[in-house]
Amino acid sequence: MRALFLSFVASLGLALPAQADIKDAVTSFTLENGMDVVVIQDTRAPVVTHMVWYRAGSADEFPGTSGVAHFLEHLLFKGTDTLAPGELSATVARNGGRDNAFTSYDYTAYFQRVAADRLELMMQMESDRMVNIRLSDEDILTEREVIIEERNQRTENNPGALFREQKNAAQYLNHRYGIPVIGWRHEMVTLDLDAALEYYERFYAPNNAILVVAGDVTPESVKALAEQYYGVLEPNPELTERARPIEPPQTAERRVIFRDARVAQPYVSRSYLAPERDAGAQREAAALTLLAELLGGGTTSYLTERLQFDTQKAVYTGAFYDGESFDDTSFTVIVVPADGVSLPEAEAAMDEAMQSFLSKPIDMEALARIKMQIRAAQIYARDDVGNLANVYGSALTSGLTVADVQEWPDILQSITPDEIIAAAKSVFNLDRSVTGYLMKEKEDAS
Amino acid sequence: MRALFLSFVASLGLALPAQADIKDAVTSFTLENGMDVVVIQDTRAPVVTHMVWYRAGSADEFPGTSGVAHFLEHLLFKGTDTLAPGELSATVARNGGRDNAFTSYDYTAYFQRVAADRLELMMQMESDRMVNIRLSDEDILTEREVIIEERNQRTENNPGALFREQKNAAQYLNHRYGIPVIGWRHEMVTLDLDAALEYYERFYAPNNAILVVAGDVTPESVKALAEQYYGVLEPNPELTERARPIEPPQTAERRVIFRDARVAQPYVSRSYLAPERDAGAQREAAALTLLAELLGGGTTSYLTERLQFDTQKAVYTGAFYDGESFDDTSFTVIVVPADGVSLPEAEAAMDEAMQSFLSKPIDMEALARIKMQIRAAQIYARDDVGNLANVYGSALTSGLTVADVQEWPDILQSITPDEIIAAAKSVFNLDRSVTGYLMKEKEDAS
Repeated sequence: MRALFLSFVASLGLALPAQADIKDAVTSFTLENGMDVVVIQDTRAPVVTHMVWYRAGSADEFPGTSGVAHFLEHLLFKGTDTLAPGELSATVARNGGRDNAFTSYDYTAYFQRVAADRLELMMQMESDRMVNIRLSDEDILTEREVIIEERNQRTENNPGALFREQKNAAQYLNHRYGIPVIGWRHEMVTLDLDAALEYYERFYAPNNAILVVAGDVTPESVKALAEQYYGVLEPNPELTERARPIEPPQTAERRVIFRDARVAQPYVSRSYLAPERDAGAQREAAALTLLAELLGGGTTSYLTERLQFDTQKAVYTGAFYDGESFDDTSFTVIVVPADGVSLPEAEAAMDEAMQSFLSKPIDMEALARIKMQIRAAQIYARDDVGNLANVYGSALTSGLTVADVQEWPDILQSITPDEIIAAAKSVFNLDRSVTGYLMKEKEDAS
Repeated sequence: MRALFLSFVASLGLALPAQADIKDAVTSFTLENGMDVVVIQDTRAPVVTHMVWYRAGSADEFPGTSGVAHFLEHLLFKGTDTLAPGELSATVARNGGRDNAFTSYDYTAYFQRVAADRLELMMQMESDRMVNIRLSDEDILTEREVIIEERNQRTENNPGALFREQKNAAQYLNHRYGIPVIGWRHEMVTLDLDAALEYYERFYAPNNAILVVAGDVTPESVKALAEQYYGVLEPNPELTERARPIEPPQTAERRVIFRDARVAQPYVSRSYLAPERDAGAQREAAALTLLAELLGGGTTSYLTERLQFDTQKAVYTGAFYDGESFDDTSFTVIVVPADGVSLPEAEAAMDEAMQSFLSKPIDMEALARIKMQIRAAQIYARDDVGNLANVYGSALTSGLTVADVQEWPDILQSITPDEIIAAAKSVFNLDRSVTGYLMKEKEDAS
């Protein structure tokens, strides 16, 4: 039931930040114990989304314990002194709501969506499990089976996922973004109570958490409840500034060839190390966001026009970039060749198309259309206040501020063609890239 | 002055273990505080080699602090309460001896070679700096400049070293063997007193150390002195069993292309993840040791015959394997192409030669010759009792025992052609390999 955010899936999604119009509905403040609070008021329906985001994900794990962030996310649904195992979710359901949790490289988040008058109950339970979790050895054994089965389903049985895992490991030489969120299987099987509690005690504390409440509430009512339930928790005095090992200069082009008999559709994929959105400095990331759309964002994109329609060398092309990341992220281009086209031919066609894109002026009509689509998506996104809670939670755990989220739509609109070309030229550096071939066994990769 | 063992250099050296004849001259025991002691008696000259080996190298570092093991090795030559900075080395020199230290993935070692009657003085100083190091912020700043300059000399100014660094990072997906012993530059510049002391306090303790004394001594005299100087030190009760993150299944062939205008001689190099010598289980590593010699161990090796003499596609070929490693190591094959031969052609010739090697019976004459050469080298190695101290120290910090070291020569002699072919077939798996091209800029790698 718990959802694991996989980087590839995340990178497929179009970022849908809040548009400037809703700026006034967002209030943020910090409790005395250091817990940040974001309130998004939306009174159209008497419901509320209550989320707690921890500034801790798989990239914050100790070496040798990969998967523990996600494992702990599962274990948080076991009991506390006052909550029996499973009681939190059962209580949410009995009150007509739904709940879930998810883990990524940079965060772990828990949420419930319930009728607005049940917010206090949610805070009571969520604040309880922030500090009072009680785990038994049996909890560990049973839930470890669950996460291993989750890995079997998502990764082991999926050659594309196994390929992306090996390729991602080659993308990062030093940073833990190279290690899968769900964990390496051989480390997952060794995760124990100590590893889970160590991670819990290090990261689960009000001064490492962000409360996001969105829906039919007032900032004042949220503040009063937050102070009552979260404000009384002791901060972790040992919490240090977040710093993970960062990449050394990447100076060698890498290639990864993954062969698996189960592969139905071979493809070539290239990822480049790319800058992420930084607080107060989002223009390059905005340019890369537009670049991904121009290059491979759909049926009118450059790669599609060139490789699917003109030369018919590909049956699918795509370009993906998600700037929401605490440290350097990646920009990925994918080409699925047509029948009879080899992967080296598809790669050559991809290179040729990217070169050609860079050598010409940006198509201003396409850029205007894409900016319009993004603006529209941002306006539609407003309809789902739960989604806005996600936008703020993921942004804040990625090192951004409320102001950054609110400035993002206008920054995207203001990006010039020159900035897009400059960003592309800076990022499309083979020395910082990994080119991957996903292929059936015994095909020729050369 | 301090020597840093680089893996590439280490892998070039033929392993020279002690032969069975000297078994009786080696005595080992453990002090009550957990410190292991190995005594190698050799009375031919009135000198002694005194070494302390720590079971801690760069692969034991915390993430983000790469280079701290080697940095600390430098800092150990600063003072203690009773030794002024530089006094230890000055005292050794004044007594006619020499001293040095070195750091690798799995160990840090300190040694002095002096007249046998100065052994007590060495123990007094070495035991002092095991627990009483005193470091100032100025020590940190000056010595950090030294190690950064060392990196400049060894790595930054050497495209081959930069290439091997990037390639090695691609070989390991999870283990810290993928991170350079000397450290990533961007992390070295942040190393501070806290990082150095944290490593020191975690690993520098008698129960994590091995004393090796070789030369004109008796086991009894060494034991008495060791108890007096090292035996009185408190063990570190928090020391845990050594365990570093190990590799997940490697399931994708990797390639690394490094371009640098300074490259004078391009070459292709392929490394395969390979098992190391394990305590009580050294046969596969012994087979790989012989395989490296047969395949690329010199002017009569298979690759040389085939690629340098027959087809003249190469001007140099080599195969390298060093089984002394705490965790999985690598087996590397290198081909330097002749003028006019491209790297892809050289690689194809290498593949063809390796296939051909595997498809034929082992040349029994060549195998007998190699076994004889190894035996001879082991006998010659006996002449250098200091080298024997190295053999025992590095073996014991790599997880082997004195018995393993002493059995190794006979194991090598007993390896059959079938075992060599089986080891080759097991290790030569492209999915666990990295193929690297070191080339000048703008050459074609495809």
